[in-house]
Amino acid sequence: MDKPIVIVGTALLAEQMQYYFAERQGRVVEAFAVDAEFLREDRFCGKPVLEFEEALRRFGPTTHELFIAIGFLATAQRKAKFDLARRRGYTLPSYVHPSASVAENVRIGANTLVQEQVVVAPFARLGEDVFLCPQVGINHHTRVGDHCFFAPAAVVAGDAEIGELCFIGTNATIRDRLRIGPRCVIGAGAVIMNDCDEGGVYPAARAERRA
Amino acid sequence: MDKPIVIVGTALLAEQMQYYFAERQGRVVEAFAVDAEFLREDRFCGKPVLEFEEALRRFGPTTHELFIAIGFLATAQRKAKFDLARRRGYTLPSYVHPSASVAENVRIGANTLVQEQVVVAPFARLGEDVFLCPQVGINHHTRVGDHCFFAPAAVVAGDAEIGELCFIGTNATIRDRLRIGPRCVIGAGAVIMNDCDEGGVYPAARAERRA
Amino acid sequence: MDKPIVIVGTALLAEQMQYYFAERQGRVVEAFAVDAEFLREDRFCGKPVLEFEEALRRFGPTTHELFIAIGFLATAQRKAKFDLARRRGYTLPSYVHPSASVAENVRIGANTLVQEQVVVAPFARLGEDVFLCPQVGINHHTRVGDHCFFAPAAVVAGDAEIGELCFIGTNATIRDRLRIGPRCVIGAGAVIMNDCDEGGVYPAARAERRA
Repeated sequence: MDKPIVIVGTALLAEQMQYYFAERQGRVVEAFAVDAEFLREDRFCGKPVLEFEEALRRFGPTTHELFIAIGFLATAQRKAKFDLARRRGYTLPSYVHPSASVAENVRIGANTLVQEQVVVAPFARLGEDVFLCPQVGINHHTRVGDHCFFAPAAVVAGDAEIGELCFIGTNATIRDRLRIGPRCVIGAGAVIMNDCDEGGVYPAARAERRA
Repeated sequence: MDKPIVIVGTALLAEQMQYYFAERQGRVVEAFAVDAEFLREDRFCGKPVLEFEEALRRFGPTTHELFIAIGFLATAQRKAKFDLARRRGYTLPSYVHPSASVAENVRIGANTLVQEQVVVAPFARLGEDVFLCPQVGINHHTRVGDHCFFAPAAVVAGDAEIGELCFIGTNATIRDRLRIGPRCVIGAGAVIMNDCDEGGVYPAARAERRA
Repeated sequence: MDKPIVIVGTALLAEQMQYYFAERQGRVVEAFAVDAEFLREDRFCGKPVLEFEEALRRFGPTTHELFIAIGFLATAQRKAKFDLARRRGYTLPSYVHPSASVAENVRIGANTLVQEQVVVAPFARLGEDVFLCPQVGINHHTRVGDHCFFAPAAVVAGDAEIGELCFIGTNATIRDRLRIGPRCVIGAGAVIMNDCDEGGVYPAARAERRA
């Protein structure tokens, strides 16, 4: 039987994970956990909110799983919590929405979210702790590193490589066969036609008001 | 048993609605109705075309439903007909394509069209008389006002607010957490990174011919 | 019973077609075939690789089908092989992924690939030898000519016309009611708001590194 889940975070992403795990999958969400500095409420989505270390003391890895629901504004903290959870022996579950098309030859790693109508095409590879928002497209033979976050409808064409800890914005476009270094930030709507070095920030050409 | 439907309009959108209601859902489309100035043919898709008020006299709200199939070129007229149909006591049906992913906690209003592979994510809210063309993405916690029209593949990221009577063009991108005022026109492919005041017109940066 | 298939090509597209036909549909892929100048390996995906004319001698049209898996870098060669296969009497199969939404009133031609979560909306028309990568949207009443290639998530709004032999790049946007002439190349992320003459090349406005 599935273990109950403790969700780390109490922002909008945590609310969504509670919906997916509890409402859609019928799993038990035991509690939410946040660092002391973010502890502002006793309950969230009808469940208790605990300080992070207190939650780990109460709900150990033999009886509970952890899901790190920290969004793209704090990817480094998500990675830190993910690594710590692993060291403590926790299993980190994943959620794949049934409307997503993930090819049979693609492996889904730990702490991964694949939302509505995402495509992960044949021969793609995903790292661990990857977030794919609705309608994201990871195309054939593309490799995605650990801890990446793809905002809604972001698309990477085939045979590309996305380094770890990247953020790819809403409806951004990455051409085929490119290499995107680790920790890049690709803005919403940006069109990437060349390789990107580590840590690059690429905002889109924005629309201007005409009338 | 479902009442027969009278479709208001005889343009391409009306043809599509006839397809969805009659061909896909097996409902009866009784007739089409248009204002006198647009009355140019007796029949459309094999059904009679009547002047609008004449259609309302023949097919009243106790026996028929109305669907206002007036597209994005005439949103104000769609709203006017929608309001009038409501005052006369008509029910206005909606159509959601089975390939769309609409979260269980989202309510679909009257005279709403949700086409192929649209995503309306958990905690989003839709007004009434909303048109979502194929592959549109309305993401988590985003609120869409009445009478909006989203062209194909337009995407609004999470926790945004779209005022009433907006047009969002094909494959346009609206970043998360923005406020788009009423009656804005966002062009095809436009990337919106800041709040938009009421009535703003935002065309995209267009591609130029190089060779 | 379905005839075995000979796939023409040994690049990434050929690998994908082998996956779709053999792994997903359970069909027999007999061999791969390439022109002599590209013959570099004896086997590909566990099957023999033959010189093109040799393959046609061994596997004739009464016992085998041909699929021309030559991608967008060599559209003219794909057309040449397609025409030759037709003249020799071969049937060219198509593959439509089950997650795609193709309206019932759309006909799928020979040597056509419709990948994950593509939408071909009601009243659209597709030519033959058309490649639609994942999440492509061909909207209502749009006509697509023979030998076109649509990269992932490219979108054409309604009632447009795309001439034969066009390439439409990843996440490109084509507004409704436009006419795109034959042999156009629309770049990844490009936004097309006007008709395009034959052979035009339209690159997108690219994102520039800011930090």
